[in-house]
Amino acid sequence: MIKTSSIKKVRDLISEQKKNTKSVGLVPTMGAFHEGHESLIKKARKENDYVVVSIFVNPAQFAPNEDYNLYPRDIKSDLLKAENNGADLVFMPNDKVIYPEDYSTYVTVEELTDKLEGKSRPSHFRGVTTIVTKLLNIVTPDNAYFGQKDAQQLAVVKRMVKDLNMPVKIVGCPIIRNQSGIALSSRHHYLNRTQMKTAVGIYESLKEGVKMIKSGTSDFGAVKERILDVLQNFGIKRIDYVEFNKWESLEPLRKPEGKVLISLAVRIGNTRLLDNVILDSPRL
Amino acid sequence: MIKTSSIKKVRDLISEQKKNTKSVGLVPTMGAFHEGHESLIKKARKENDYVVVSIFVNPAQFAPNEDYNLYPRDIKSDLLKAENNGADLVFMPNDKVIYPEDYSTYVTVEELTDKLEGKSRPSHFRGVTTIVTKLLNIVTPDNAYFGQKDAQQLAVVKRMVKDLNMPVKIVGCPIIRNQSGIALSSRHHYLNRTQMKTAVGIYESLKEGVKMIKSGTSDFGAVKERILDVLQNFGIKRIDYVEFNKWESLEPLRKPEGKVLISLAVRIGNTRLLDNVILDSPRL
Repeated sequence: MIKTSSIKKVRDLISEQKKNTKSVGLVPTMGAFHEGHESLIKKARKENDYVVVSIFVNPAQFAPNEDYNLYPRDIKSDLLKAENNGADLVFMPNDKVIYPEDYSTYVTVEELTDKLEGKSRPSHFRGVTTIVTKLLNIVTPDNAYFGQKDAQQLAVVKRMVKDLNMPVKIVGCPIIRNQSGIALSSRHHYLNRTQMKTAVGIYESLKEGVKMIKSGTSDFGAVKERILDVLQNFGIKRIDYVEFNKWESLEPLRKPEGKVLISLAVRIGNTRLLDNVILDSPRL
Repeated sequence: MIKTSSIKKVRDLISEQKKNTKSVGLVPTMGAFHEGHESLIKKARKENDYVVVSIFVNPAQFAPNEDYNLYPRDIKSDLLKAENNGADLVFMPNDKVIYPEDYSTYVTVEELTDKLEGKSRPSHFRGVTTIVTKLLNIVTPDNAYFGQKDAQQLAVVKRMVKDLNMPVKIVGCPIIRNQSGIALSSRHHYLNRTQMKTAVGIYESLKEGVKMIKSGTSDFGAVKERILDVLQNFGIKRIDYVEFNKWESLEPLRKPEGKVLISLAVRIGNTRLLDNVILDSPRL
């Protein structure tokens, strides 16, 4: 496995692969790998001749009051995991190379980014779409892998790629959960043992919601009440949102229609946690 | 020469070229070709194995009060000129293919786009950078050709490509002028014979400015006065701006420093016309 912080080195290595008509897969990450990241690298390994993992904690997607400085970094462990899961190249650029002093170009997806996460984090997705564009332009992969854990991010990136005619396929990958059902997140580094027990309530509440919908409840207002009840029962009181949206357009839904994304964001201690499920509306 | 409105057809033809390691040049245009456009196609022909010309009058770069509907279109003549100058492929997409109904992604270059043209045309450059991104992603050229006539556009596109790490070289090409020195423009279609005579004053004024700077005048305030005088003498009274900026950063300049862009926009009748010169500051 090769590691580099040089854009030129990446371009040279990739153009060598392309010359030999090898397919290239990119897994863009902010490091602090858990099994979720590992599953993306594994999938990229299966589906491509050459696998690039990028590690870059992207300042542009954090607001000034957010956890950019605290965000967990463990490059040694990340490199080991990347290698063990079959990465060929790890690209770890510096801030100054990605955002030089006169940097001034941004990619924005409108509408899709106003709701859910975008409501609490107004400039977040502009940072995401801009860095993803840059990484796609540097690596020029055939396939790029994103976790469904950040469902809105996945929908936004897919829309961007479609709108801008980017020559890449975006591959969404399922959420990886621990034995208690908690969706793995790098931000679990911030939680203590009690808080992790509380976090179990998040997926429990979503499962209750899914159960109601599958058993025929067609009023999402009622489903939301039930989800909020379960969260409360687990001691989760600070709830940013619980929402029902059409997947992948993110249109708000009041009742089952096509594929439904149930997503939520809550706070446990100072940590903001996300989770979601995507389910087919039951036939009535 | 092949003509198509299909993105897929373009991709297929280009991937065939790339398989044979052929270089690809793109000349993005809004049609209504004059010798300026032809010079871009000729240059692309010289420097690439395969030359793509795109023709698309991009609604996103016109404000509602501007001349999108009136903008001259002459596809028959354009195709002839493209072929005569050596184009291999003309891509003429439809509006609906470029901007489908749920379209919502935009590329923005900040700061550089606030001044000069951007002041009079606030959303213009967002339209330009967005369509150029799309065309670059569809055609994936090695080189893309832009005229210096739209100097700010050239600077903005170069900045975008640098900031977003787009894998393409942007080639700026000199302004082509008619025998009277008028910078060729598709918008000359709007002018009558008397107005064309008036338009001669534009380049005459710029030449006066250049002469003053070359002969040692270091106060751009005085140079601007002289340019305005010449314009007035030719009967050009509606002047959007006459400005002095550093090339390519577009920083405003009060005195000579490195490469200087002198640019102006004026109105003759209802037609807005641009011109500019780029000159090296004289050694003092």
